Amino acid sequence: MLLVADNLTGAHPRVTRALRDLDPQPLQDLARRCAAAGARMLDLNPGYLSPRFEDRMAFFVDAVQEVTDLPLILDSPNPRVLTRGLAACRDKPLLNALTLEEAKLQEILPLAVEHRTQMVLLLLDDKSQPPPSLEGKVAVALELRERALDAGLTDQQLIFDPVLPNLRWPDAWPQTGAGLRMVRYLASGALFGTPARTMVGLSNLRSGLRKIYPVQMEISVLALLAGAGLSLALIDVLDQALVEQAQLMIQVVGPS
Amino acid sequence: MLLVADNLTGAHPRVTRALRDLDPQPLQDLARRCAAAGARMLDLNPGYLSPRFEDRMAFFVDAVQEVTDLPLILDSPNPRVLTRGLAACRDKPLLNALTLEEAKLQEILPLAVEHRTQMVLLLLDDKSQPPPSLEGKVAVALELRERALDAGLTDQQLIFDPVLPNLRWPDAWPQTGAGLRMVRYLASGALFGTPARTMVGLSNLRSGLRKIYPVQMEISVLALLAGAGLSLALIDVLDQALVEQAQLMIQVVGPS
Repeated sequence: MLLVADNLTGAHPRVTRALRDLDPQPLQDLARRCAAAGARMLDLNPGYLSPRFEDRMAFFVDAVQEVTDLPLILDSPNPRVLTRGLAACRDKPLLNALTLEEAKLQEILPLAVEHRTQMVLLLLDDKSQPPPSLEGKVAVALELRERALDAGLTDQQLIFDPVLPNLRWPDAWPQTGAGLRMVRYLASGALFGTPARTMVGLSNLRSGLRKIYPVQMEISVLALLAGAGLSLALIDVLDQALVEQAQLMIQVVGPS
Repeated sequence: MLLVADNLTGAHPRVTRALRDLDPQPLQDLARRCAAAGARMLDLNPGYLSPRFEDRMAFFVDAVQEVTDLPLILDSPNPRVLTRGLAACRDKPLLNALTLEEAKLQEILPLAVEHRTQMVLLLLDDKSQPPPSLEGKVAVALELRERALDAGLTDQQLIFDPVLPNLRWPDAWPQTGAGLRMVRYLASGALFGTPARTMVGLSNLRSGLRKIYPVQMEISVLALLAGAGLSLALIDVLDQALVEQAQLMIQVVGPS
């Protein structure tokens, strides 16, 4: 299991301000701290960028690349933002993410084909909703994979994200369970006849609820996913308790 | 995943004294507290009993049965101790455990056949040693299963325990990793063509090391195993932090 930092995100005012003011310093400081904390990849999520600010993704990539060689994940639902990021990347990034929404299939999938990048497939339906059951998630995974392979991608380029719920959702625990079984199913090779890579964003669980739920909850859910065979853990790598336990998990499950 | 209490063990002086003095009170008190804490089964391990004290296992069973209807696991390497326990049991217990040691195959396996009980198979070789690699554990599991089926048991009666290392062992983490992959392999059904049940004793990890390693380590390893598909978690159910997280894991992976 590899640790991916989710810290470089427009959800943090510091990042939003740095992008607005074209100030590389806070972004570079964060990137350095994430690398030092054990991140093996950095997810760059600029948040919403209005059309005239879409080029800020190139600034984001440039700033971070100046201080680290870690692989980057370009994280945006906006194909123009991804395009700006792709143009700036020194090394091939991963793209995050495709869903079954028709607009994304039309505009984001071709970017992965053109640039031969790896691609995160979020298990969300054509309305961007997570199917609650394992069966629903399997159906979405099969269709997303078919669309990706038809477009010219290979299985080696695909990374599946079953999308963890927020703990506010009334069915949060059964949804987490379905996501866990989905990781197990994909990682075991039972679904496609060959093991598939998986990624999960942990922070979504407690998003807006950090004062109510302790980080211990994220630690236990991360370990459940690691035990199921998770490939990439997208987490807050600056949370010391979480990373300390994640490193212990990696000693058990292996580094990749 | 079901929680099994490992608290009724001769490793605790209170239990040893109660068995020596034929005092049911401390045993019944412990059994009640384990049930209240969420245990769904109780493992009764009297520790070493010399020949003239082997009947203390019947006393142990009688004492506990008076205060709880929870299923019991009779835990001893001594077939005469298991026999005394079996004679006292109101309901069918599980037997813990068989290994590839010839004496156990000769004397413990027939008890499971005669009493049609479920049986824990420890993945230990004929010298009672854990094979360090996954391949070694698989070889032992295949041979143990073959011996058990040949003797007349069915797959439904078998529970496999890959045996966690103690953290003092120099290869403790890779061993834990091999145990984890073994649980995944058995639970997925990939090894025998049908999912097999698994049990792991968590306390062995920190045995003698509780002042050095925090319980958090057991929580993370338990979650890794739960994510891999563990059926029975043999744990200290009176550790509140551990049980609280185990209950959270059960909300995700389900109650059995």
